[in-house]
Amino acid sequence: MTKPLRIGIAGLGTVGRGVVKILHKNKNLLRKRARRPIEVIAVSAKNKAKNRGISLESYNWENDPRVLACREDIDVFVELIGGHEGIAIEATKAAINSGKDVITANKAMLAHHGHELALQAESKGSAIRFEAAVAGGIPVVKCLTEGLAGNNVDRIIGVMNGTCNYILTRMESSGLSFEDIFAEAADLGYLEADPNLDVGGIDAGHKLSILASIAFGSQVNFGSVELEGINQISVEDIRQAADMGFRIKLLGIAKMTSRGLEQRMSPCLVPAESPLGQLEGGTNMIILEGDQVGQIILRGQGAGESPTSSAVLADIIDLAREIRPPIFGQPAKELTLFPPAKSESQTPFYLRLQLLDQPGALSKVAAILGKSDVSIDRMRQYGHDDETAPLVILTHKTTRESVDSAVSALPETRVLKGNPVALRIENV
Amino acid sequence: MTKPLRIGIAGLGTVGRGVVKILHKNKNLLRKRARRPIEVIAVSAKNKAKNRGISLESYNWENDPRVLACREDIDVFVELIGGHEGIAIEATKAAINSGKDVITANKAMLAHHGHELALQAESKGSAIRFEAAVAGGIPVVKCLTEGLAGNNVDRIIGVMNGTCNYILTRMESSGLSFEDIFAEAADLGYLEADPNLDVGGIDAGHKLSILASIAFGSQVNFGSVELEGINQISVEDIRQAADMGFRIKLLGIAKMTSRGLEQRMSPCLVPAESPLGQLEGGTNMIILEGDQVGQIILRGQGAGESPTSSAVLADIIDLAREIRPPIFGQPAKELTLFPPAKSESQTPFYLRLQLLDQPGALSKVAAILGKSDVSIDRMRQYGHDDETAPLVILTHKTTRESVDSAVSALPETRVLKGNPVALRIENV
Repeated sequence: MTKPLRIGIAGLGTVGRGVVKILHKNKNLLRKRARRPIEVIAVSAKNKAKNRGISLESYNWENDPRVLACREDIDVFVELIGGHEGIAIEATKAAINSGKDVITANKAMLAHHGHELALQAESKGSAIRFEAAVAGGIPVVKCLTEGLAGNNVDRIIGVMNGTCNYILTRMESSGLSFEDIFAEAADLGYLEADPNLDVGGIDAGHKLSILASIAFGSQVNFGSVELEGINQISVEDIRQAADMGFRIKLLGIAKMTSRGLEQRMSPCLVPAESPLGQLEGGTNMIILEGDQVGQIILRGQGAGESPTSSAVLADIIDLAREIRPPIFGQPAKELTLFPPAKSESQTPFYLRLQLLDQPGALSKVAAILGKSDVSIDRMRQYGHDDETAPLVILTHKTTRESVDSAVSALPETRVLKGNPVALRIENV
Repeated sequence: MTKPLRIGIAGLGTVGRGVVKILHKNKNLLRKRARRPIEVIAVSAKNKAKNRGISLESYNWENDPRVLACREDIDVFVELIGGHEGIAIEATKAAINSGKDVITANKAMLAHHGHELALQAESKGSAIRFEAAVAGGIPVVKCLTEGLAGNNVDRIIGVMNGTCNYILTRMESSGLSFEDIFAEAADLGYLEADPNLDVGGIDAGHKLSILASIAFGSQVNFGSVELEGINQISVEDIRQAADMGFRIKLLGIAKMTSRGLEQRMSPCLVPAESPLGQLEGGTNMIILEGDQVGQIILRGQGAGESPTSSAVLADIIDLAREIRPPIFGQPAKELTLFPPAKSESQTPFYLRLQLLDQPGALSKVAAILGKSDVSIDRMRQYGHDDETAPLVILTHKTTRESVDSAVSALPETRVLKGNPVALRIENV
């Protein structure tokens, strides 16, 4: 077992560069831990000439990652290109076909093609490892696949997109609008090339669907994640929530129900004092609930060069140590495609309405809510401007369906200005 | 790989019973995850006739765990007997000598003999797995050994004894004394047979020394853990700490310094609003800090039948999957015995004194503190009884040595009643 593990790295952006740096910096330590040397044989990226602050001289260069993936002198293909179509998946498939193991940080690719890739890898005896694809440096894939392997998992809850959490906490601390903080995040380089991946909840949804596959023995099914982004969240809602002891987080929840697999990613109110409520900035948190272990909470940096590279390194050392659990926790051919279950979970909801300042307005609203089986727990009407009286309602537990039905019926009262805001409250 | 993994379980107390139950309840799921059946071949315990609420009929019975450990028809010996001397270690050594893999929840045995056992196992090609030995259901051994394998670990911080945390939080909520709540915990069956293992910080110290070995490549060295229990903590200190925004936790800290390995387990003040400060009851928390990943926080149930059994199951499934990382994260023969470093960390301290109500008392105290280089940040003197004025001081950052020197010099002022209390403040 003193034969080196030979790797090829495709993609030398933030993470690829970070991986090369750690392999250099912690070289001796890694060799002891892995019980064998780890050698970078070749690398590939778009632009060979670009100054990345690292020396690439001792590595072979490949212009085409698909060629790198099939080199006879590598054991592991490390895919850090990104994107769910195109070169990343072509190179990944080529690597598997050549009998290589694959390490990837590409959640989009796994969310869209994870099951197909796992089947292919399984038939070739290849591993696919993807710790860096979910929640950056937090070893959540390992915790779930291996650490909780004795459990029937009941539920996964998580804040898994640091950019959204950054935007929401900055909106709260600054009082500035979504648009202003969005621009700030863009300036800081926090946003994906397509920012809707972040603020639309898509990136976090990718991660949730990957964890759900492992947890529930389901084929990765990103298509059935109910997605709602944070771009409709106003400072007003953040303030109202805070006043009532809540904070708004983009929260993912996955659980198995008798109707199928429920997966949703949406902005929710959580108690400000709870572990989730206390998350600041780019920090991620995943809560895993199992029938034996109860609740396990994991918290750490969800992005950034070093944390994400740390996760890639864990996968590299795992492969050097011959640690090869089933890709999604069970043989891929035994995974089930569960029907998506529209959430029937009953939770309280937060509603915010702009009520026109006219007699009988409130009673009309209350009547609609009652008809939809939405009952009021707490209500507050606050300082109003010229023509409208803002109204915030916390409901008793009810379903999303009942709330949606009420929300869609409310305009017919003709006592509202604009659209009502309805956010779920999760008392996690 | 469809050959069953055959296990023998020694010890059918809370955890042993729990493991048997899960193997039965989640049988099909476990087979899929492990990619092979897991079969209990034989069990052993003190009393065969005892009703444990589980059926043992289908398992072979051994009166002597040392005989069980060597049975030709088992692959893995699961040691759930406990105790750092005697039958547990004899059976463990016998198992290793017979070429079996070992799974154990026995932190005392590992803290005292971990290095010796690892060397023996390594020479035989046997694995020793011990996820259940540290922090119950939290997969911290796996996170550290595998998930953070790419990191130089900077520091480990943890609340790792649920019983102590229960006692401290109950003292706070009830206002009752240590002795009262200690009796309550005993009634509830929360205490070890030798309660000093819990309240003396020994059990938590065992766990810290095991994690420190993995984190820093050191031979397990429990003997050099600086230990301080919680039995000197008074309700008065808990109240004063709370008044100033702190809570008292039995906190373990391990880090590598230029002088050697620092390991200490002692009651400390932590900010009440911090993740550590918010821990209630039997919950455990481990904070891992690495040079790449930054800070990872893990939280979950640190004891109890199901959480601890969940950890044993993770080890069983790991072995079924042929997951065999180095026992303490590196080959045992490469581990170093680092000299113990007495803590030179500078932190603020909390001091509580009973000052005799006489002129010049405070100035005498202040003079002693000054001489020992302990400077006062905040001070409060509060409602006094007939003869003494209680005084609480928060110091600026200083060393334990300076504080100890001040504390040992204070009695010579003859203005104190009883002994001063000095607790470290950790702003984690």
